[in-house]
Amino acid sequence: MPRLGTLPITMQHEPQTISSISHPEDFKTYYYNQKLDHFNYRLDSYTTFKQRYVINYRYWGGANASAPIFAYLGAEFPLDEEFPNIGFLSDNAPRFKALQVYIEHRYYGESVPFGSMKAALKNESIRGYFNSAQAIADYAAVLLHIKKNISAENSPIIVIGGSYGGMLAAWFRLKYPHIALGAIASSAPILYFDTIAPQAGYFSIVAKDFKETSESCYKTIKKSWAEIDRVASEPHGLSTLSKRFNTCNELNASSDIEEYLVTIYSDAAQYNHPPSYPLSILCNAIDGASVGTDTVGRIYAGVVAYMGNHSCYDVNVFKRPTENSEGWNWQTCSEMVMPIGFGTSPDSMFPPQTFNLNEFINECKSFYGVLPQPHWVTTYYGGQDLKLTLHRFGSNIIFSNGLRDPYSSGGVLENISENILAVTTINGSHCLDILLARPSDPQWLVMQRKTEVKIIEQWIAKYREDLLAFKLHVRAKYIYEGNSTDSYQK
Amino acid sequence: MPRLGTLPITMQHEPQTISSISHPEDFKTYYYNQKLDHFNYRLDSYTTFKQRYVINYRYWGGANASAPIFAYLGAEFPLDEEFPNIGFLSDNAPRFKALQVYIEHRYYGESVPFGSMKAALKNESIRGYFNSAQAIADYAAVLLHIKKNISAENSPIIVIGGSYGGMLAAWFRLKYPHIALGAIASSAPILYFDTIAPQAGYFSIVAKDFKETSESCYKTIKKSWAEIDRVASEPHGLSTLSKRFNTCNELNASSDIEEYLVTIYSDAAQYNHPPSYPLSILCNAIDGASVGTDTVGRIYAGVVAYMGNHSCYDVNVFKRPTENSEGWNWQTCSEMVMPIGFGTSPDSMFPPQTFNLNEFINECKSFYGVLPQPHWVTTYYGGQDLKLTLHRFGSNIIFSNGLRDPYSSGGVLENISENILAVTTINGSHCLDILLARPSDPQWLVMQRKTEVKIIEQWIAKYREDLLAFKLHVRAKYIYEGNSTDSYQK
Repeated sequence: MPRLGTLPITMQHEPQTISSISHPEDFKTYYYNQKLDHFNYRLDSYTTFKQRYVINYRYWGGANASAPIFAYLGAEFPLDEEFPNIGFLSDNAPRFKALQVYIEHRYYGESVPFGSMKAALKNESIRGYFNSAQAIADYAAVLLHIKKNISAENSPIIVIGGSYGGMLAAWFRLKYPHIALGAIASSAPILYFDTIAPQAGYFSIVAKDFKETSESCYKTIKKSWAEIDRVASEPHGLSTLSKRFNTCNELNASSDIEEYLVTIYSDAAQYNHPPSYPLSILCNAIDGASVGTDTVGRIYAGVVAYMGNHSCYDVNVFKRPTENSEGWNWQTCSEMVMPIGFGTSPDSMFPPQTFNLNEFINECKSFYGVLPQPHWVTTYYGGQDLKLTLHRFGSNIIFSNGLRDPYSSGGVLENISENILAVTTINGSHCLDILLARPSDPQWLVMQRKTEVKIIEQWIAKYREDLLAFKLHVRAKYIYEGNSTDSYQK
Repeated sequence: MPRLGTLPITMQHEPQTISSISHPEDFKTYYYNQKLDHFNYRLDSYTTFKQRYVINYRYWGGANASAPIFAYLGAEFPLDEEFPNIGFLSDNAPRFKALQVYIEHRYYGESVPFGSMKAALKNESIRGYFNSAQAIADYAAVLLHIKKNISAENSPIIVIGGSYGGMLAAWFRLKYPHIALGAIASSAPILYFDTIAPQAGYFSIVAKDFKETSESCYKTIKKSWAEIDRVASEPHGLSTLSKRFNTCNELNASSDIEEYLVTIYSDAAQYNHPPSYPLSILCNAIDGASVGTDTVGRIYAGVVAYMGNHSCYDVNVFKRPTENSEGWNWQTCSEMVMPIGFGTSPDSMFPPQTFNLNEFINECKSFYGVLPQPHWVTTYYGGQDLKLTLHRFGSNIIFSNGLRDPYSSGGVLENISENILAVTTINGSHCLDILLARPSDPQWLVMQRKTEVKIIEQWIAKYREDLLAFKLHVRAKYIYEGNSTDSYQK
């Protein structure tokens, strides 16, 4: 399954710093003593773990002004890798006089119950609690804790998340409307579950992105798979392929290089962000190889352009497990079963292949000893016929998507109602809107963010209206009932 | 804590039959293989239990007509004690051509994971899953299972519950709007948690009910506590009291008889239903005792009138644990912490006493070995400032209450929004509206039910509108995209 997350591969191994954010010293780290299982009652085994969160008070207008709280809901990464890039909070905090809160997702970063991801995943009685329902219950507990600590009971909370974190943000608003006033769910493929979205949606957008960038690039890639297989099947074919792709180690199978290439193409499409547009860089290299270069040579030129100049290329680099990837693998093998396949369309850029649920289940069983629950997400959160079921229910969710993001195929791309809105950009990629604003941002991206800010301003304005009416109402009841100590629904 | 539940004590020990329902043979019993823990992922320990549910197909209009499903969400009783009395489904099924579904709550009746309540509560690793979040997840799973089995994907579901079950119905609509179109939450004290409702609310309504029925009855009871204590403190006082109250066993303390009386008064107020109005029967007896009868004698006359003529009175009858009461005690000791006390108001009919949370916690610890979580209900479901948080969120919930029901002090008594409505009756008692209609029902009760039926008709009419628009929209997209195999959000 293609990676989720707010940042591309090419930035993954760069050290993340908060230098891009002004006043890094304003970000204070805290730890909350979190319950491991919110849905069980015990005396002696309320196991807890330390959950990390970060607060920036600099721009906050204070409790008396009912100034809002912007809360970033962490996803499948350590918090310190995530929050320095989430510009939506820091860029807009001054305008809203907002408190910035960033909460780490359970089992990632420092918020791992057993110290390390490996230990947590090994422990049968610990790893089962590594799921989204527990995670959003964590967020509920932390946010109520923060509100209480700073006496900000009337401060509206806006939750923000991207990718998997975007799903969490949308689900949080739906499940905990009494805690969050609204949610920005950026590039959240909440419909990529069960049988809702077409399985080939992801890779059909990858193909479309390539085709729209360069028809010849698309065609070269499309025919390259057969060509790679042909070379591999010749005598010493794998050795030839290894040399031609300048791999650090001899290939074991042609699928090694093929999977490597699929990851690069997916990533290029998913994170095809301005101003560099990595997909164009890749295709320019493929198209621009000197006349006479064969297909394999062109593909290699693409790899070099995308990955940068290296003495050799490690085709297993994306497969090598990291703490983060191990965590996310667990999640996809248990709850987050997203049935993504290449599909069989003639427009596909990839070899025909459908998602095989049984095979997936068996792999998860043998690897983690867990039985995937592919229908649970739609049972707990819904998703089937979303427009029908939520048309007159719920409010204040922005589903933002860039339509060039392959994951937008599982996104909400139409308004569900007056207050559950889709904000899309034709040229956008994955999670762009919530990343740090840059001077080089194109007009359409600037406009997308402005639209989102305006919508949030409306939510908060309506909330203030309600708050005023509510306070007057309570006071009127109070006087009417002549009750000086306690009143109904204080 | 006063009992919840749809039926009064006086009917509790009567054999429940379905004779009052026409065509009892139409109620078919089924069992669903239910997961014990919905919020954990395992391979080898997806412990399951058989959950009982009952379906009546007689009046159902069928899947093709998208005929609705009325689903009764079981509360803290075995299903067969509950559903024959829940007339709202059977009385209205013909009008709506509705399928009737009744689902038993986990750990009650036949739906106990370990065979018996005692065994389940003894087992540390089983009893923890006995809570409301798991219970409503059960309902979600069963309802989706039924819908799938009868191919009724477009049939709207209305969930119905009373008392604790009414809370579950309201919470179910809020947490699973994609499964239930609407909810009737009858006499659901969803605000009797944490610090939302005044602690003395329950007993202040009991007192008001007595005062409004008979000022002299109210005054007799009010002064009786001191009188009982006075008699008890005399030489052989307990023996005297035992004789005067004709108790089956000698009293051990005056509190034995006092607790017995509090239960009777609470029950009389809570279930003061037409046409018999038990509270009037009780007060008539107290007021009507022959001239010269002292306070204790009057109180005893009330007991006899309320409990019926017995050779002696067993004052421990309400304290003796039953499977049901043990289950509910566990629930109140873990999650459903409702802080109800007599209060200290001069209008109270009871000795001054406040709810002591610490004492309550210690009792639960020593009795069940569980640590109550008094803030969890408001964290998971909300409740604080309900009007503010839900004013622009959610829809299609009826909170029905009879204002003479002491539990209405924790109920939602005002409209939250256009579609989250309070339907109250001045003279109503606990759960009256969802019980079987009788020819003797007063006009206000007939009207209350009619109002509820009308509201549900509106929900369903709007749903049909949305369904039509949704189907047209999907077909239009389908043609537009020229996609013959799969389409976005089918």
